[in-house]
Amino acid sequence: MQTLNVNLGDRSYPIYIGQRLLEQSTLLSEAIKGNTVLIVSDSNVAPLYLQQVEETLAAENRRIDSLVLPAGEKNKNLTTLNLVFDALLEKRHARDTTLVALGGGVIGDMTGYAAASYQRGVSFIQIPTTILSQVDSSVGGKTGVNHALGKNMIGAFHQPVAVLADTDTLNTLPQREIAAGLAEVIKYGLLGDIEFLEWLENNIVDLVDLQPAALAYGIERSCQNKARIVAEDEREGGKRALLNLGHTFGHAIETAQSYSGLLHGEAVSVGMVMAADMSHRLGWLSSADVQRTRSVLAAAGLPTAVPDGISAAQFAELMGHDKKVLAGKLRLVLLRQLGDAVISADFDPAALEATLQAFATA
Amino acid sequence: MQTLNVNLGDRSYPIYIGQRLLEQSTLLSEAIKGNTVLIVSDSNVAPLYLQQVEETLAAENRRIDSLVLPAGEKNKNLTTLNLVFDALLEKRHARDTTLVALGGGVIGDMTGYAAASYQRGVSFIQIPTTILSQVDSSVGGKTGVNHALGKNMIGAFHQPVAVLADTDTLNTLPQREIAAGLAEVIKYGLLGDIEFLEWLENNIVDLVDLQPAALAYGIERSCQNKARIVAEDEREGGKRALLNLGHTFGHAIETAQSYSGLLHGEAVSVGMVMAADMSHRLGWLSSADVQRTRSVLAAAGLPTAVPDGISAAQFAELMGHDKKVLAGKLRLVLLRQLGDAVISADFDPAALEATLQAFATA
Repeated sequence: MQTLNVNLGDRSYPIYIGQRLLEQSTLLSEAIKGNTVLIVSDSNVAPLYLQQVEETLAAENRRIDSLVLPAGEKNKNLTTLNLVFDALLEKRHARDTTLVALGGGVIGDMTGYAAASYQRGVSFIQIPTTILSQVDSSVGGKTGVNHALGKNMIGAFHQPVAVLADTDTLNTLPQREIAAGLAEVIKYGLLGDIEFLEWLENNIVDLVDLQPAALAYGIERSCQNKARIVAEDEREGGKRALLNLGHTFGHAIETAQSYSGLLHGEAVSVGMVMAADMSHRLGWLSSADVQRTRSVLAAAGLPTAVPDGISAAQFAELMGHDKKVLAGKLRLVLLRQLGDAVISADFDPAALEATLQAFATA
Repeated sequence: MQTLNVNLGDRSYPIYIGQRLLEQSTLLSEAIKGNTVLIVSDSNVAPLYLQQVEETLAAENRRIDSLVLPAGEKNKNLTTLNLVFDALLEKRHARDTTLVALGGGVIGDMTGYAAASYQRGVSFIQIPTTILSQVDSSVGGKTGVNHALGKNMIGAFHQPVAVLADTDTLNTLPQREIAAGLAEVIKYGLLGDIEFLEWLENNIVDLVDLQPAALAYGIERSCQNKARIVAEDEREGGKRALLNLGHTFGHAIETAQSYSGLLHGEAVSVGMVMAADMSHRLGWLSSADVQRTRSVLAAAGLPTAVPDGISAAQFAELMGHDKKVLAGKLRLVLLRQLGDAVISADFDPAALEATLQAFATA
């Protein structure tokens, strides 16, 4: 097991990465202060791991409640969030309770936001069960839900007290989810770690096959990259926005499909290709660099083209609703070179327009 | 105009107290960074002051949007909150937007929570238009909404960037609202400022009559008391809980009446009498002290008895859902003496039971 500490002063917390972590009661118990726990999971993950986590958490003088939410990004909204509040209040959880998020990014984001909001803030532990959530949503304290007009528009910064990334839980993931998670892993190489990108180009097949050693390395290095950036910029004033590489384009795709088409990671994959393409049009990347970006994503089984039915105008409209808009100006994460992302608001709009035209499918 | 600074490090902010503040554009403009503003008001307050505030805020390069919510505590919920998110997203407000809460405590709490949550946090200004919100909800950064099973159960700590308490806005308040606000003013005397309590006993008629000098002093001294306590304990680990004098009993009354009977301040008035009564049963207050408590509240036109139809058992049940429950144990704010409140969890339960029996009305 590896342990990575995210350094955020009095909100610092450990990320444990390895196999069989769900069975280790010490890791969980160390992070729990009160004598009540609410485990929040979803209808996909609960049948696989909920009983195990309940057993691991069982202790004298501790009451374990569980809540199983309907799975899927489309349920990441205020209505579903309110089910968590219902459960907490019906079962009389007090301010010293601990929420445990058992599932992927949707469960992590909603449970984290419920923890941030319940009685204005209680503790929570993340047990991410997807690659995506292990490398991404479990690090950084971003929590929230979607609004019909935009993704993650409602939320809070709220740090977990501990994260358990058990790589064994990845064995039950559908292939498509594995690939979607690898999109975020590849993102860390592209945005700031060229050495890691090269390692990924050489080891992508082992990751797709869930080889434990490759997985542990890939997840740890991704978390290190993210933890470093988050520690420098906890509330996203500047550098943290680099983590949004591919996300502004990707969110537009997800919103156009009402969050029921491409998976988040798949949309980010396409978004990163679009960011690379636009960076090429700005004269920053070579066409070989764009091809490398496309290739490593494709080798992970990820889409690199926009799904049918999205016009350039629709892209522009939806990107206007993205959080990366500052004072009405669109800020994009682009690539100066592979492994070196920058945030730019004063790019040539013709490059954006050309990319949107080139990728539009309607 | 008086200016009171709430000292919270980089989240410090000024409270301006006085007459004709709504007309002073400098105070507002100093607190606004971006070039969009959303004023949130309610159906009672908007017809009186919204146009004035829109005019005062008007500036070149600034877009002013307004949203009028249905008035009343019963609308302080996630559904109404979502109307604020709808407006922000439909009108494409970005992260640098500023929300302005124009109204009483309900509008302040909801707008503050919307500001805390929108894109994980934007700025907001409080323009409280009731005594209650001028002395209470505008100081301290508590924001949130109610849940069917408990008041203020969902929320965040989020400090405003400025508070404008314009005492002229109180002239349009119904008498009952004025009295309800004075309950919180009297609370500051009872819980920690015996000198202020004595001043209140001598000046309560002037406050009820909205004499400007008395009002300004009463509001300023209340804010000072609250600001001092909040500065010592921003996130309610300890001392801040003293501010809940009368609130645990009061919330039970409000919940029993589904927030449609007594006003918040009225319920707190009854709750403070109950806290005084229980403190007497514990041997801390004399019966004369309890009578003084009752008298000053009654002189303000406030109720001092529980409304019909609430049993002792219902009280006990509803108090169990109150946020002041820690690890299953009820913590109450009681009075060691007048002007000296304490938080206690190890009181004699027989004293609580006796108070509930004495005040029960079913």
